[in-house]
Amino acid sequence: MPRYALLIEYDGRPFSGWQRQASQPSVQQAIEAALARLEPRAHTIAGAGRTDAGVHARGQVAHCDMVKDWDAFRLSEALNHHLKPAPVAIRACSRVADDWHARFSATERRYLFRLLMRRAPATLEAGQVWRVMHPLDVDAMREGAAYLLGKHDFTTFRSVMCQAQSPVKTLDALDIERVEGLAGPEVQFRLRARSFLHNQVRSFVGTLERVGAGAWAPERVRDALAARERAACGPVCPPDGLYLTGVGYPVDPFSTAS
Amino acid sequence: MPRYALLIEYDGRPFSGWQRQASQPSVQQAIEAALARLEPRAHTIAGAGRTDAGVHARGQVAHCDMVKDWDAFRLSEALNHHLKPAPVAIRACSRVADDWHARFSATERRYLFRLLMRRAPATLEAGQVWRVMHPLDVDAMREGAAYLLGKHDFTTFRSVMCQAQSPVKTLDALDIERVEGLAGPEVQFRLRARSFLHNQVRSFVGTLERVGAGAWAPERVRDALAARERAACGPVCPPDGLYLTGVGYPVDPFSTAS
Repeated sequence: MPRYALLIEYDGRPFSGWQRQASQPSVQQAIEAALARLEPRAHTIAGAGRTDAGVHARGQVAHCDMVKDWDAFRLSEALNHHLKPAPVAIRACSRVADDWHARFSATERRYLFRLLMRRAPATLEAGQVWRVMHPLDVDAMREGAAYLLGKHDFTTFRSVMCQAQSPVKTLDALDIERVEGLAGPEVQFRLRARSFLHNQVRSFVGTLERVGAGAWAPERVRDALAARERAACGPVCPPDGLYLTGVGYPVDPFSTAS
Repeated sequence: MPRYALLIEYDGRPFSGWQRQASQPSVQQAIEAALARLEPRAHTIAGAGRTDAGVHARGQVAHCDMVKDWDAFRLSEALNHHLKPAPVAIRACSRVADDWHARFSATERRYLFRLLMRRAPATLEAGQVWRVMHPLDVDAMREGAAYLLGKHDFTTFRSVMCQAQSPVKTLDALDIERVEGLAGPEVQFRLRARSFLHNQVRSFVGTLERVGAGAWAPERVRDALAARERAACGPVCPPDGLYLTGVGYPVDPFSTAS
């Protein structure tokens, strides 16, 4: 069966998350249902990142196996047709080797978190940013973030629901930038790692927000990490501002994509 | 009665437009209802721009008259509280002179139109951009747009429903830029004029899209303008990508706003 890689964008708000669940709308289920319109049978796709409820994606990657030898461009067009009106879109599609795996072949996940600093509630960005009403010290947040870079036991920043075998991960980047957006000043966090633990990004951002607000000294992030216990973590922030922006592979499957 | 200027942002999707209408949700009505929670009586506010159904605002301006002498910051906070969960927010509030008028004192309106060039449907930007599936020639669009600058009889680019007394307006700016957005390449149109006719921006953008697509030569925009008849206009584009970004006054009422 020919295998295809799919580059997927979605608005996470109406979904209980990426992963298929009985009686809850999920992104995976929406795409599998669209595949079943093209080849009527049960489909099971594998995604590179299992995003939570309310978390968005610009560049989720999944693969699917088809019976028919589809032209990749026609497959993406047909899927987009059948995905309507769900806010899920196939941005690119590529034929890949039979042993290529969206999740296991991935060598990097990239996330963006958008925090909007203003008093007024978000309107056009509702559900797409975390609004924080007080000003934040970006330099202090950067100082706190620096302690998290590299290889660590991230037990403190891991949900108790996390199913990963080991809490040891290597964080390759956690860049924090102030950006003047149309809705007001944003603090944008960009993270990169081979893989992340469950709730790791939201645990980082929630903790760093405390540093930015002045409630935590930057060094407390170092101590929280060293504690290796969930109770040492700051508050987990809401999912609203979180985006899976991309997945890295040894060779980009979409470099020649239609 | 003390008068206050309000700087307003909204997502136009759930509304039939700015203007109050019987039995249709409008932005004006939402704000008037919030005012009535603060001072129980009928309120009538005046807005600087009467945006259509589905059109958004980053910087709409309106004024309201209150009985109580409100602190401007407290007034905006109280309005935001009562506006929830409607996607309307007061970004700033300022006490103004009794003869200051949001609409009649305005000397400039600014609009942004966002056009997203890609095949895949919009997800996170659904309703906030006009998606066009073919590539567009920005230089050709700029050439066509240049004919529209300055003082003209804009009958061609005016809805038959337009209530303005004269079709003669002065267009001060129509800048077109290609921007690499997270969802893909966008063409952004930025327009500036003392005032606009009904559907003028959407008539411009719909016409210029035809130029960008190669279906119209740039000179046809000049001819369409000269024709001074509605039938000469290109297709009116959808409201989705249109934003009232700001309103200009001789003195910015929000320069010292809370």
